[in-house]
Amino acid sequence: MDKEVILLDLQPSPFAMRVKIALAEKGVEFKSKEEDLSNKSPLLLEMNPVNKQVPVLIHKGRPICESLIIVQYIDEIWNHKSPLLPSDPHQRAHARFWAAYVDKIYTIGRSFWTSEGKSEETTKDLLECFKTLEGELGDKPYFGDKTMNIVDISLIPFSTFFYTLEKFGNFSMKAECPKLVAWANRCMQKESVSKSLCDPFKTYEVVMQIRKRHGIK
Amino acid sequence: MDKEVILLDLQPSPFAMRVKIALAEKGVEFKSKEEDLSNKSPLLLEMNPVNKQVPVLIHKGRPICESLIIVQYIDEIWNHKSPLLPSDPHQRAHARFWAAYVDKIYTIGRSFWTSEGKSEETTKDLLECFKTLEGELGDKPYFGDKTMNIVDISLIPFSTFFYTLEKFGNFSMKAECPKLVAWANRCMQKESVSKSLCDPFKTYEVVMQIRKRHGIK
Repeated sequence: MDKEVILLDLQPSPFAMRVKIALAEKGVEFKSKEEDLSNKSPLLLEMNPVNKQVPVLIHKGRPICESLIIVQYIDEIWNHKSPLLPSDPHQRAHARFWAAYVDKIYTIGRSFWTSEGKSEETTKDLLECFKTLEGELGDKPYFGDKTMNIVDISLIPFSTFFYTLEKFGNFSMKAECPKLVAWANRCMQKESVSKSLCDPFKTYEVVMQIRKRHGIK
Repeated sequence: MDKEVILLDLQPSPFAMRVKIALAEKGVEFKSKEEDLSNKSPLLLEMNPVNKQVPVLIHKGRPICESLIIVQYIDEIWNHKSPLLPSDPHQRAHARFWAAYVDKIYTIGRSFWTSEGKSEETTKDLLECFKTLEGELGDKPYFGDKTMNIVDISLIPFSTFFYTLEKFGNFSMKAECPKLVAWANRCMQKESVSKSLCDPFKTYEVVMQIRKRHGIK
């Protein structure tokens, strides 16, 4: 155990999952500290005083915040294996663009559990987003081509939400985006991914609890 | 003129200004092509088919999109002078965090020109954001300490909005954030900045036109 690496974590957070996959890809052991967002720890407030959010990676006592910034940091620090960003500047910019694009899923999808109604519009926007990503994947095995890169790591945690999104949006990912579902299954065969992702049914439960808190039936 | 460098531009866009400053810091000449957002050019739609937004940097015929990704690309390609990101991975993560944080100003501020009312709340959020940035600046001459870095380049375009924001929010930046105003004046002494920024009164005019289009008096 590398005692110098601590993750301020939250099991169902797709953003925290990104960090866990990146660390696993690099073979870095870490200590996970589960946060309670309704009662944030003094450590979280000290380490991420601006956004007060998970994930936070604490390395040698110093915090790094924001999931995609953390993934880049991990790639730069543990650069001996499994590069997570391409070495060519143009390809790197391209990967950064798509890794950030993924966050749209969260922005769109969360309206299912923070507001009532408009579900048809949300479903339409969501499917457009997934299909755009599927177009970017094309016939490659991974977004990073032969190996996973930061785009795969950014997106794969959202596969734990496929079940939840299908339920609320009344659609089938397999019918709408078969290549993306095949890609997700491919990623799940990697231990770095499978051990870092939350169970889709557990994710659904968490989302239902959030809806309840927002007073949505 | 480096004919290989083209910027799909929009004069009052703070995001396009970031790219112009970064190119100027590196001494890279470029051709600016002004876009009309109500009638987007075929080149823009071809080069940024996903977001269809400016700025887009076209280098050797290939597009790079999203302002902060472009600034990082510029820093990686023209790495012979004026580094825009620190070389230390932790400091680089720190710079990326704050450069991205700046976008909050846009997210908060735009409610002044896209929705009516709530101006007190917007002003409160905006000032909190500016004060947080001022806290990060501290007593350093620049966010990058002795020289400008990606955080300075991310934030300084928004100084062209100070006048507009003060008018709508009924506050004085000089009274609320004197260090930030002094920092902005310091940046403006650099030619890379002064020649890339839009006039604050012109910015105000543009914002008033946007309000009109949104049917806000």
